[in-house]
Amino acid sequence: MSESGDFNLSGWTCPLPLRSYPTVVMGHGSGGKMMADLIRHLFAPEFGNDLLKQMGDSAVLELPTGNGEALRLAFSTDSFVVSPLFFPGGNIGDLAVNGTVNDLAMSGARPLFLSAGFILEEGLPMETLGQIAASVGKACEAAGVQIITGDTKVVNKGHGDGLYINTSGIGLIPPGVHIAPDRARPGDAVIVSGTMGDHGMAIMSVREGLAFEAPIVSDTAPLNGLVEVILNVTKNVHCLRDATRGGLAAVLNELAAASQVGITFEEQTVPIRPAVQAACEMLGLDPLYVANEGKLVAIVPEAAADAVLEAMHAHPLGKDAARIGAVVADHAGLVVAKTGIGGSRVVDLPAGELLPRIC
Amino acid sequence: MSESGDFNLSGWTCPLPLRSYPTVVMGHGSGGKMMADLIRHLFAPEFGNDLLKQMGDSAVLELPTGNGEALRLAFSTDSFVVSPLFFPGGNIGDLAVNGTVNDLAMSGARPLFLSAGFILEEGLPMETLGQIAASVGKACEAAGVQIITGDTKVVNKGHGDGLYINTSGIGLIPPGVHIAPDRARPGDAVIVSGTMGDHGMAIMSVREGLAFEAPIVSDTAPLNGLVEVILNVTKNVHCLRDATRGGLAAVLNELAAASQVGITFEEQTVPIRPAVQAACEMLGLDPLYVANEGKLVAIVPEAAADAVLEAMHAHPLGKDAARIGAVVADHAGLVVAKTGIGGSRVVDLPAGELLPRIC
Repeated sequence: MSESGDFNLSGWTCPLPLRSYPTVVMGHGSGGKMMADLIRHLFAPEFGNDLLKQMGDSAVLELPTGNGEALRLAFSTDSFVVSPLFFPGGNIGDLAVNGTVNDLAMSGARPLFLSAGFILEEGLPMETLGQIAASVGKACEAAGVQIITGDTKVVNKGHGDGLYINTSGIGLIPPGVHIAPDRARPGDAVIVSGTMGDHGMAIMSVREGLAFEAPIVSDTAPLNGLVEVILNVTKNVHCLRDATRGGLAAVLNELAAASQVGITFEEQTVPIRPAVQAACEMLGLDPLYVANEGKLVAIVPEAAADAVLEAMHAHPLGKDAARIGAVVADHAGLVVAKTGIGGSRVVDLPAGELLPRIC
Repeated sequence: MSESGDFNLSGWTCPLPLRSYPTVVMGHGSGGKMMADLIRHLFAPEFGNDLLKQMGDSAVLELPTGNGEALRLAFSTDSFVVSPLFFPGGNIGDLAVNGTVNDLAMSGARPLFLSAGFILEEGLPMETLGQIAASVGKACEAAGVQIITGDTKVVNKGHGDGLYINTSGIGLIPPGVHIAPDRARPGDAVIVSGTMGDHGMAIMSVREGLAFEAPIVSDTAPLNGLVEVILNVTKNVHCLRDATRGGLAAVLNELAAASQVGITFEEQTVPIRPAVQAACEMLGLDPLYVANEGKLVAIVPEAAADAVLEAMHAHPLGKDAARIGAVVADHAGLVVAKTGIGGSRVVDLPAGELLPRIC
């Protein structure tokens, strides 16, 4: 805990490797190395506690019930600053609900209750706010969650971007479910629930004014139903992660690092829509690094993999699910892609900004 | 639930009384009538559920424990957009922790876990962020809570104001405690925990560049310890509310409306620091409407009032506590102040903006 007083800014020294950035840059919010450094070197030392160090999509906490047992809750928060507010397939409202629902679901929790905090910019059309509130309501209904507490703040014109939304959420983790980023084991199968890169390229196509024959549509969706399907096959799921900022590459790297294992995958088995692939090529982007808002990565014991995959295929959000690779004992902490031409390459954590303000 | 599609903005009609505001204005965030209208007419119909309708500082939810009983949790969220980020007595960091700690405490809960969502503006000095993170950590330690989950987003320069922080929190409500805005009963005593208006005038004095002989300092503080002291006297506390945006006037009006009772108070018994009084007179403000960040209003049965007051006086945050009035059966929904010269006046809910971006 720092001893510096509130007004004594001179006492604060910026720990490496933040020192090379005297100010916040867009990359600090992009889900890559720069954001990880900010959390590890600036926030964590000040907030430091064991629960924060779980570094999952949501924190897992235990509340004793008085009869010697405990309720296990997932608790998660996410702020949404996506630009533009409306995009093909959704808007900031349903994105904000689905984002927190998914973070809760990734610990195996059944999402129950959400909070909603709105930061409105003076001048936002009331009609726009009404549309977004309606989308929030519909997304809650679809995911089976309730917003039970909220907050509204207004900032002066020029100090926001229409609106920002924070959602936080509480979910209940069923007994016997223990999903965590550090539970991947050599031999486990790596499964993705569907096509990669749809959300990021939907945002990008609007921003860049790109027109494709078939428009690219965001995959924003609540994944708690799909997670329930997976847990009905086996409670022994090792890791779940929704592939948001930083895309599939960031998720695989985080899981490999947390579990201290290697991950290998066949690049050609990763499902990618042709339009997304084409748009990525046009813009010089790698779809493995592009954000999704309705796709998850599951790491499950090999023995359960086929049954999990079969169950996922029967769910609308898992119909394109594919087994893409495996956890290995070699190259701990590294993710290696086997390329179509028989070679292999290290797929690193993205450094900083790829597509800012994607969610 | 609205049926309007995400892109069909033309279908949305703005319900009265929002119609007179085609866009969001600062007053919609100021804790008064305009904000209440926004919540009631725009958000609530879309999110509508019984828990949201509790309209307390935090929502109360019950989780069955499996042995026929239930854990009662308080869940609350608050976004902080205070300007300037640093002010006499605190900064946005400790304000964000204390604000949510207090919202939880106002339902009688013991605050346990917080989330922290940071929206950073590109260009924010890393040193400033470090200072604020340190204040967040210290405030958590002081309040006895832990930040266990977080989120960081970065927005482009010119689309924020340094940083905004959302904190959400979970607390555990002890058995036998049932505090709610609709529980005030005629005959109850109305107690305030200390001087009114300190936080708002501390912010205002910095913004306006006012210099006083003794600087006005924000009262930002965690109130959970004081609440514990009160509950040790009696679990039968009817209402608790921290007097933030809209000040004492807003709190009394909200409680009178929710409980459908009248409230009367002696204006001269409300503790106000001379410097705050002087600053308010200079700026033409009524201190009853000015925000506090470490003061609460308690409505307790008359029989317990003296003992509660005595216990509060023994706590550092309650040493200036005062009984200011009573709940009455007359003029349901109205708050009436008895003035020093023997008259009386209705103290209404503030309409809109008094001091924007105070928290």
